[in-house]
Amino acid sequence: MNLVLLEPGELDAQQRAVLGGTRAGHLLTVLRVTVGASVRVGVIDGGIGAASVDRIEAGRVTLRCTIGEIPPRPRIDLLLALPRPKVIGRLYAPLAQLGIGRLILSNAARVERFYFDAHQLEPGFRRAQLLDGLAQARDTRVPIVTVHKSLRVLVEDELDALTPSTRRLLADPGEHLGVRDACADLLPSERVLIAIGPEGGWNEFERDLLRAHRFTPIGLGPRTLRSDVATIALLAVASDALSSRSG
Amino acid sequence: MNLVLLEPGELDAQQRAVLGGTRAGHLLTVLRVTVGASVRVGVIDGGIGAASVDRIEAGRVTLRCTIGEIPPRPRIDLLLALPRPKVIGRLYAPLAQLGIGRLILSNAARVERFYFDAHQLEPGFRRAQLLDGLAQARDTRVPIVTVHKSLRVLVEDELDALTPSTRRLLADPGEHLGVRDACADLLPSERVLIAIGPEGGWNEFERDLLRAHRFTPIGLGPRTLRSDVATIALLAVASDALSSRSG
Repeated sequence: MNLVLLEPGELDAQQRAVLGGTRAGHLLTVLRVTVGASVRVGVIDGGIGAASVDRIEAGRVTLRCTIGEIPPRPRIDLLLALPRPKVIGRLYAPLAQLGIGRLILSNAARVERFYFDAHQLEPGFRRAQLLDGLAQARDTRVPIVTVHKSLRVLVEDELDALTPSTRRLLADPGEHLGVRDACADLLPSERVLIAIGPEGGWNEFERDLLRAHRFTPIGLGPRTLRSDVATIALLAVASDALSSRSG
Repeated sequence: MNLVLLEPGELDAQQRAVLGGTRAGHLLTVLRVTVGASVRVGVIDGGIGAASVDRIEAGRVTLRCTIGEIPPRPRIDLLLALPRPKVIGRLYAPLAQLGIGRLILSNAARVERFYFDAHQLEPGFRRAQLLDGLAQARDTRVPIVTVHKSLRVLVEDELDALTPSTRRLLADPGEHLGVRDACADLLPSERVLIAIGPEGGWNEFERDLLRAHRFTPIGLGPRTLRSDVATIALLAVASDALSSRSG
């Protein structure tokens, strides 16, 4: 935990927060804070700042916080054909670590129906995992997750509103432009949405649908990656490409 | 399984191999091959080619193989402070998918001693995971794994012989050159070795030791990643950098 995340309602008018539970436990037993110690804090979907430990009593830690600016939302969004429950359960934290604005989870021909009933899709479960990733990466902006039971409805009717001003890329096996080159002429105001298919890939209909809606195929070299590894690899390369362009 | 991997001894003088067990099971129940079907095959640490199904009998599949060229060994090696058992157990397959030549696992001050006794370090376990990753990525070159109980002995006495002609990079939090820029002037014959510390990082002594032995610090942007995510992200960005330079 590199950042103590606070719910907005936890700060009182004096910018103090009283923590119990796992956050207090982490501060006391892992970071071994004492009164006067300084820790990094962030308000969920709000600013990042510093806090000093004001009081420690009965396993509870009182922090006096100075909250600064809200970090920008990461510029990359992902559209994933819903991975199987165990895989999506493990992906939330790494994706929040690497930084995404939105996670759009969709049905596809090669997605099993029962995946949608998994506890890994429940808002409470995924939020806990996402916050864990944000605390690791020192970010406060929770990726917005939406779940869609029809790829066609998503792409035809919903995607323009969900992701305006966005370059759309489609991870596809075979000889294509790399993600770095595909982002080379991105406008500063433009975001990037990367679509990644299920194990076994999109079918013909889905690939045509995505291409017909401005998704440009991109490749990640000659090696065929499992989709969870491809997701992290593409996000890493795209993030690196965007940061070196702006830096 | 995108490539059926064969042990060199499994091919007879007529280039035939008789498969049972999980490989035959995969061919018959997932790929649903019939006699005459064509499948991709590779010899472990040998060539890649095609095979036709010659015979199916009692759950065993006979392949007649035409083996071609040996793929080049990936140009990137990794030096990891040994991650905890569950984490390293899960890393082998993704690393083999993305492609590495060597995996050098080392002790460090923040590595717990008991990690070295874990079953995830046993050659049989790790080989099975690595082969799984190679079959996914259609590669035959098994990463060479070595385990070192002293970082100092490794760096001072063993590393030159293990990794000759290699650019050495040290993943380090903070403001540094990115991995792409650090590889920009690489000679075609040169390899890359990326060192990644334990959770909590290398200590001062270890960082000095590595820098004194030609490791150049590199960064991966402002987000602090857990070391398994950093490993996959750095490997993805470095692989992308090297492939776009040669392609």
